[in-house]
Amino acid sequence: MKHILINYMKRYSDCTEEELNKIASNVPIEEFSKGTVLLQQGEMPEKCYFILKGCIRKYSVSECGKETTFKLYTEEQSVTIFNQHAADKSSRYRLECVEDCVLVVGDLSEERAAYEENPGLEAMILNMVQGDLGEMHDEFASFMSSSPAERYKALLAKRPELLKRIPQHQLASYLGMTPESFSRIKKRLGSLKG
Amino acid sequence: MKHILINYMKRYSDCTEEELNKIASNVPIEEFSKGTVLLQQGEMPEKCYFILKGCIRKYSVSECGKETTFKLYTEEQSVTIFNQHAADKSSRYRLECVEDCVLVVGDLSEERAAYEENPGLEAMILNMVQGDLGEMHDEFASFMSSSPAERYKALLAKRPELLKRIPQHQLASYLGMTPESFSRIKKRLGSLKG
Repeated sequence: MKHILINYMKRYSDCTEEELNKIASNVPIEEFSKGTVLLQQGEMPEKCYFILKGCIRKYSVSECGKETTFKLYTEEQSVTIFNQHAADKSSRYRLECVEDCVLVVGDLSEERAAYEENPGLEAMILNMVQGDLGEMHDEFASFMSSSPAERYKALLAKRPELLKRIPQHQLASYLGMTPESFSRIKKRLGSLKG
Repeated sequence: MKHILINYMKRYSDCTEEELNKIASNVPIEEFSKGTVLLQQGEMPEKCYFILKGCIRKYSVSECGKETTFKLYTEEQSVTIFNQHAADKSSRYRLECVEDCVLVVGDLSEERAAYEENPGLEAMILNMVQGDLGEMHDEFASFMSSSPAERYKALLAKRPELLKRIPQHQLASYLGMTPESFSRIKKRLGSLKG
């Protein structure tokens, strides 16, 4: 399964196949059951993840109990809570496995040591994080400039598999609407299931 | 004015004062008049910026002429369009000076050479970009989970100076509402001007 990770790294790196193999051979792969909470709200983030199989939901529960789903990460996406900018370094979000997951697990405290051991790794990670930042900009911009119905259509076009993988009320929250609106829009525009 | 840049770098770096001075002495500082377009929609991004003074607006104009303001960058923020993730590397956004600006201007094509010349620079930039990504996550999450009135209150609390610096219709768009709603909410909640 490590070939998925190696192929992903190739997109962001000038490292040789041998160097990438070395990096991949040093990272642990772990399995997590559906429902596992990888990080609680208020906990210090200590790990980062890369999804080989499965789906991770990033969400928060407000003081009054309102749940908002911010991100749905699937295969070949990396999941890290970056808190460099924050005064309080604990996580505002919960990370939970929506499905059984197979994940590459990295230890944030070993980041610097890993860069020193693997030449080219830091450049690759920088490239990946810059890519993530650009992607996040685009997602945020799309969210701001579109209506809930347009967001649903974009989801159908770009990530249709999420409709089958994610509970409807979580998808509704992710698209910024109530479950009732989601159901109405889905009916009006037609879903994948027809 | 370079002390602003040096102080900013210190937050993200273990470099010595001497090393930071060397980095700062090598970057050009340029002045731009209010209204200058730094990057057009559809253009290839070639520069990155760090704001010493002034404000840059990141926005787009849709095919039907609708303008959406996505980001309002001010002092001590860096502005880069990252397109690593995109098939089309041209910018979806326009960058425009909302005020007269004094900017540190970096050349994206010289990024790699600069890292080789300045040990510690790559680690610092990675740290900054990770911070930016975390901050963007938080902003996106706040936007998703809050009402327009709550966003206005958050702006009043965190960046009240924007109310004086940015035209009202652009602020309304940035907060995800019409100028009419913005005006109504402002009246209802009271503005800084009292």
